[in-house]
Amino acid sequence: MVWPDTISKRLGVKYPIIQAPMFGVSTVQMVAAAARADCLGSLALADLSADESIELIRETRKLTDKPFAANIFVHHIPEVTDALKEKFDKVRPFLEQLAKDNDIEVKLPDLADLKVRPYHELIDAIIEEHCTILSFTFGNLDEQSIQKLKENGITLIGTCTSVSEALILEKSGIDIICVQGTEAGGHRGTFDPDHVPQIGGLSLLSQVYDHVKTPLIYAGGIYNAKTLNAVNDLGAQAFQVGNLLLASQESALLPFEKERLKKVREDEIILTKSFSGRYARGVKNKYIEAVEGSEYILPYPYQNKLTNALRKAAKFKQNTDFVGIWTGQSIHNYSELSTEEILRNLIFQIQGN
Amino acid sequence: MVWPDTISKRLGVKYPIIQAPMFGVSTVQMVAAAARADCLGSLALADLSADESIELIRETRKLTDKPFAANIFVHHIPEVTDALKEKFDKVRPFLEQLAKDNDIEVKLPDLADLKVRPYHELIDAIIEEHCTILSFTFGNLDEQSIQKLKENGITLIGTCTSVSEALILEKSGIDIICVQGTEAGGHRGTFDPDHVPQIGGLSLLSQVYDHVKTPLIYAGGIYNAKTLNAVNDLGAQAFQVGNLLLASQESALLPFEKERLKKVREDEIILTKSFSGRYARGVKNKYIEAVEGSEYILPYPYQNKLTNALRKAAKFKQNTDFVGIWTGQSIHNYSELSTEEILRNLIFQIQGN
Repeated sequence: MVWPDTISKRLGVKYPIIQAPMFGVSTVQMVAAAARADCLGSLALADLSADESIELIRETRKLTDKPFAANIFVHHIPEVTDALKEKFDKVRPFLEQLAKDNDIEVKLPDLADLKVRPYHELIDAIIEEHCTILSFTFGNLDEQSIQKLKENGITLIGTCTSVSEALILEKSGIDIICVQGTEAGGHRGTFDPDHVPQIGGLSLLSQVYDHVKTPLIYAGGIYNAKTLNAVNDLGAQAFQVGNLLLASQESALLPFEKERLKKVREDEIILTKSFSGRYARGVKNKYIEAVEGSEYILPYPYQNKLTNALRKAAKFKQNTDFVGIWTGQSIHNYSELSTEEILRNLIFQIQGN
Repeated sequence: MVWPDTISKRLGVKYPIIQAPMFGVSTVQMVAAAARADCLGSLALADLSADESIELIRETRKLTDKPFAANIFVHHIPEVTDALKEKFDKVRPFLEQLAKDNDIEVKLPDLADLKVRPYHELIDAIIEEHCTILSFTFGNLDEQSIQKLKENGITLIGTCTSVSEALILEKSGIDIICVQGTEAGGHRGTFDPDHVPQIGGLSLLSQVYDHVKTPLIYAGGIYNAKTLNAVNDLGAQAFQVGNLLLASQESALLPFEKERLKKVREDEIILTKSFSGRYARGVKNKYIEAVEGSEYILPYPYQNKLTNALRKAAKFKQNTDFVGIWTGQSIHNYSELSTEEILRNLIFQIQGN
């Protein structure tokens, strides 16, 4: 196949392949390695503070002078109401006890101590650090931010999980849309956390392509030449891979997590909002079974911030039953090679055709 | 693209395109029209009686002398226990009252009157009627039936919604596997009704292809050259279309149902077990909102048989809130042309490339 080039030209990379931003898994080393493979790395900043983000951007710059995308969450933050406070006071002790019952001693933070922040301070940091590409998920940027970012020549990549989200992004002038099929791992990029479409890539990408003119990246299920070619047929101009890099040398996953992934069965892959309050695709475990569908889930980002210490403690104890291990539906191709090798192998598979 | 021919040669049709069996929607006329387009029609027999099935097979033969697939359900039938009886006695009055509250007067049958039958009598009918192709869903055929059917030269097509189901089908010598992506409309073909994988076609088809040698049909989301080419890339040797024919001239849907389909929004497409006790993809309505997730759902096939009269009464009253309108996730391409024209247009799109 001939590489589509609308997006790669615009982003300034040789190959239209994007390393997916995977907060907690992708690293500055992974971003740099993707760049060395002449692909686009994505620096996952999620909802870090401006200072933390600036530090990561600068670390990345030390490792590569090639372009990369900064990736942030642009979620709405629910107000702290009395009802939320009341719920928090039930959820925290429940989760602490659940952890304790499973040999994880952890003190979870108070509601007031959760570092919940709007994304706007990140916008300024990204402009000041002269980032050239900003990708985002969980909604659309506000109009003012879009204007400011565009005035600074920053290319904007929004994420959609439905045709209607794609139309919203296009209408507000977002440059590139990343279409996330239900196959993708980790958080669904859906705007409304309570109504998560689960549209398969074949239906989603083809229908988004029929409805918008904006160039499209596709994410979800790509792991070899076959899947990449299929997505190319469906109209994508660029190809985002996440799962393929989950177990790579540059992944922040620990060996016990990589081992768990290699043994995962297809019936263990589920969508859960138990860890963060937003639906994410990953590996079912004891924590998820106890919490999913229960009343012990706060809205995002509160649940996410609350369970952070729990997940860290579980990771420290190498306890697969209480860490969040995210993965998509293509589960048979975790490689422990370097990110650069994995991406170069994928490129070779395509060019060999 | 060059048409893959492993399956079309085996089935004795010119094009490797299959009209999906859609019980309640597809008709003998649709099967014959698919055959006129040099594709394979599928005669949906579901769990009809042997006599009813024989009649439909003979009717089809009057309309075409080309091959077609007979399609049956090979589900396990749960025993009538005291618990089931007790539940039935709650579900029936609840559904009758729900209907009544919505201006549908209907008397639902007693448990003893539900025509619940194992699929084995259909096997004999299919052999006696000299059918040449049998496709099935909801599980695998038992060993004895497989042997009997094979001895009679009948080509067997099983349905999978996961890699593990594909492996089971292959192991028992099924000739062709139909891989049903989560994009597909109507019933999920899953073996275990309580654990329904929702794997997107990109991940599912590519991984099934990696794990079995059996030739593959793909179903779910195909509606144009783009989607068909993509599925071809992923390794399918034949292409099953359902949604594309839902509103065709030969469809059994009434005009009010076709109108409803044309207005459907992507966020109205859901999986529900409220009508049949097995998950099926269709259009959300008042009935589904009232029953889904409630205690008023019997296991398949009891729920299906019980709600039959309710759905018929709703159809008679043209009440979209109480009929089951099934559809997949590719919702923008319902055509009211004839089945033959729709299929010929699809073929032309491919050959034109």
